[in-house]
Amino acid sequence: MIEIMPLLDEKSKMPLYIQLYNYIREEIVSGRIKPDSRLPSIRNLSVYLKISRTPIADAYDLLLGEGYIRSRPRSGFYAVSPEDIPSLHAETAGESEEEEQKKSIASYDFHYDHVDLHHFPFKKWKKWSNICLTSENHHLLQNADLQGEYGLRKEIASYLHQLRGVCCSPDQIIIGAGTYHSLQLLFHLLKDDVAIVGIEEAVNIGVKGIFEQFPSFSYRSLTLESDGISMKDLYNSQAQAVYVTPSHQFPLGMTFSMKKRMELLQWAYKKNAYVIENDYDSEFRFNERPLPTLQSIDKHNRVIYAGTFSRIMSPSFRISYLILPRSLFHRFQKQINSYNQFASPLLQKTLQLFMESNDFARHIRKMRRLYQKKHDILVNAVNHFFQDQADILSQGSGLHILLKVKNNMSENELILAAKKEGINVYPSSIYFLEPSSASTAAVLLGFGALSEETIKCGIKKLAKAWKIT
Amino acid sequence: MIEIMPLLDEKSKMPLYIQLYNYIREEIVSGRIKPDSRLPSIRNLSVYLKISRTPIADAYDLLLGEGYIRSRPRSGFYAVSPEDIPSLHAETAGESEEEEQKKSIASYDFHYDHVDLHHFPFKKWKKWSNICLTSENHHLLQNADLQGEYGLRKEIASYLHQLRGVCCSPDQIIIGAGTYHSLQLLFHLLKDDVAIVGIEEAVNIGVKGIFEQFPSFSYRSLTLESDGISMKDLYNSQAQAVYVTPSHQFPLGMTFSMKKRMELLQWAYKKNAYVIENDYDSEFRFNERPLPTLQSIDKHNRVIYAGTFSRIMSPSFRISYLILPRSLFHRFQKQINSYNQFASPLLQKTLQLFMESNDFARHIRKMRRLYQKKHDILVNAVNHFFQDQADILSQGSGLHILLKVKNNMSENELILAAKKEGINVYPSSIYFLEPSSASTAAVLLGFGALSEETIKCGIKKLAKAWKIT
Repeated sequence: MIEIMPLLDEKSKMPLYIQLYNYIREEIVSGRIKPDSRLPSIRNLSVYLKISRTPIADAYDLLLGEGYIRSRPRSGFYAVSPEDIPSLHAETAGESEEEEQKKSIASYDFHYDHVDLHHFPFKKWKKWSNICLTSENHHLLQNADLQGEYGLRKEIASYLHQLRGVCCSPDQIIIGAGTYHSLQLLFHLLKDDVAIVGIEEAVNIGVKGIFEQFPSFSYRSLTLESDGISMKDLYNSQAQAVYVTPSHQFPLGMTFSMKKRMELLQWAYKKNAYVIENDYDSEFRFNERPLPTLQSIDKHNRVIYAGTFSRIMSPSFRISYLILPRSLFHRFQKQINSYNQFASPLLQKTLQLFMESNDFARHIRKMRRLYQKKHDILVNAVNHFFQDQADILSQGSGLHILLKVKNNMSENELILAAKKEGINVYPSSIYFLEPSSASTAAVLLGFGALSEETIKCGIKKLAKAWKIT
Repeated sequence: MIEIMPLLDEKSKMPLYIQLYNYIREEIVSGRIKPDSRLPSIRNLSVYLKISRTPIADAYDLLLGEGYIRSRPRSGFYAVSPEDIPSLHAETAGESEEEEQKKSIASYDFHYDHVDLHHFPFKKWKKWSNICLTSENHHLLQNADLQGEYGLRKEIASYLHQLRGVCCSPDQIIIGAGTYHSLQLLFHLLKDDVAIVGIEEAVNIGVKGIFEQFPSFSYRSLTLESDGISMKDLYNSQAQAVYVTPSHQFPLGMTFSMKKRMELLQWAYKKNAYVIENDYDSEFRFNERPLPTLQSIDKHNRVIYAGTFSRIMSPSFRISYLILPRSLFHRFQKQINSYNQFASPLLQKTLQLFMESNDFARHIRKMRRLYQKKHDILVNAVNHFFQDQADILSQGSGLHILLKVKNNMSENELILAAKKEGINVYPSSIYFLEPSSASTAAVLLGFGALSEETIKCGIKKLAKAWKIT
């Protein structure tokens, strides 16, 4: 029998079974555990390492699943020769990964982050892209404006003015490679005069990741009420900046009321604080007239506005933008050489040409109609199949809803039961900064990428999976 | 006379004159200072604000230069109406910016970062790009693998193996949106077990900017000798990681000798330290056989390899890569959700198709021949027009040379004299971590983007500008 002596750290954030899996995996790959040698039994290893059997069984499961070991009935587990481990060999691994992707596309995936790409304007985009890719335009392939292409910034300023009442000059706009990149830049700018940041109690994982990259800030969680953040929490926070998603809170989906918007701005004026307004899927507000952005009603340059093209165009372009109040913009100018422009100038220029033509305006109208229809179908299907067994906690804007199912299943049980039927729905509790504050078991259902038929059929299957019908 | 009551903070990192400039600028733009009202004199404002006259004069200068105020002889400074301030009006600003760009393209620009885009394979790239932009491939527009597209990583692994002897699996590769993005990611991974980083005494400004983003590291400057970094400096540094550009030091241009490469690896093994090898323009080594990369001769997984497609393809794609040793890769896997993939999946996929075809190999061969020719023309032109009046301090690889001119002009004088003749050459001293260590006045001459004729003509004009002939 071989010896297994991993250094397990019970205090590590990495679960024991992953530590054990990593250790055995490397021993096999490096050849230190010889091919075909028998691994200790779960029972023996448990006694030897003085840990329970569960993590060992989990580690072996993982190793089995990935082909590092094989099991022989009534004999035990044996190391596989590195040459025979599929995931170590590029070609096979690639294919299986692609296979897996195809499989997940085939299922009912209510991912809140997916957008409808069947209706992407391929032909028009190709036209503009090919214009950029001609030798006369070769300078577009050179590294370009650190702040982002001027022509694109000009289009963004005019688009936001028309659609969102945002008032700004192209000079105040900084292009980024997605919202996370924009926020990263912003936090670098703020870190000299902001120490405390107030944030909505539930927030996108990626945004949370950015916060963690800036340990010099301390964060205050702000309770979310049906009409926006708790002003009481904000008043007590001593924050010098606050991060909000007022047009469609992520993930809970509420819209900030006009009253709350005004209070928020008043607070910012009084405290000379910044309001970071992430308007990530503002293009899609159904049924009701959209409320004005904070940026458009701000009288004292306290609002920093962040937006993205990931929703209205495609996340694969990696293009977002930030609108800075003048004072912050001057700071940016001073530091511009330490900023890195990660958004592709080529794609920026293509987007600019697309926006300059009527194609963009037409595309927005088309996508809004399309998503409105999908949204209504989803809401109707939920009402039809769930009757009074579920509440839609937020609806009317954006590309996802939050669903509370009244069948006494926990969030995790809901997700697992759905998965068994080939349906992906997503947790909401993981977005809370403090785990205990997730008061209701509710799941996120995105509808952007699904066809109308799939939405109806998926909801019907969900009702069955959750034993509603 | 109007009143000016800015809140000036003498402890702020922002200079007083900038604070004052910002304040007055906003007062004028907002209309709180009425058009044509007279500003207080420098002398009166100095008494009133209890600060010296210099920052006030500087602030007024800046406001004058940008058109916010105008001066009337023997009367004073007057606010301009916001409608008449040119920089506030997008269209005008845009046009002048574009005009400026055009002008700079027309001159002789020996920029070390520019690549030849006249010979970019537009037709072939368009072909692959258009294949990605079809509705059957709509999933390519969805957000994709956080680590980078698997298929592209596979191509990179095989390309680096063939060209640079690099041995790695696609699993170890992480795609980034340019070298700075890749280094940002890497430093996040290293920050838990690295406190001291050794860096070459002269280093790319962007890389320096990344270092500054990680104040938890302390840095040790390592003297550069003709065959690489000073090992003595490294032994004394107590560094746990070292950053080097062994195949073509940026900016000084030397290549690390084989002896130094081996010593560097020995040091890393002994200290269990990391070597960060930035191989940014390794495709271009002329005349001599390239030396093996550190990654390819590393026996103990201490080398982290960074590369980019900015040189061989186009900086506008924003695609780079990082090859992690296994141990670091496992750390990356644990943290993958806090990593943000800024490189466009669409461009990644296009690049993958381009690499899978023979087009890429052909392109590399073509560009290498092309750059070799330009390099030789540059070197010959320098020898011809400067004779013994200049030394080329480094040559034979990469897209720039370092030129020492023996006419007793300082670096700055050389640059200014060239500029007068419409020629841009670039300083080398600004790259030094400690300004005093730039011992020789030498300028950088990049040749990537210039035609053969322009190179010859530019060098001739330089000789004249510097009074060599």
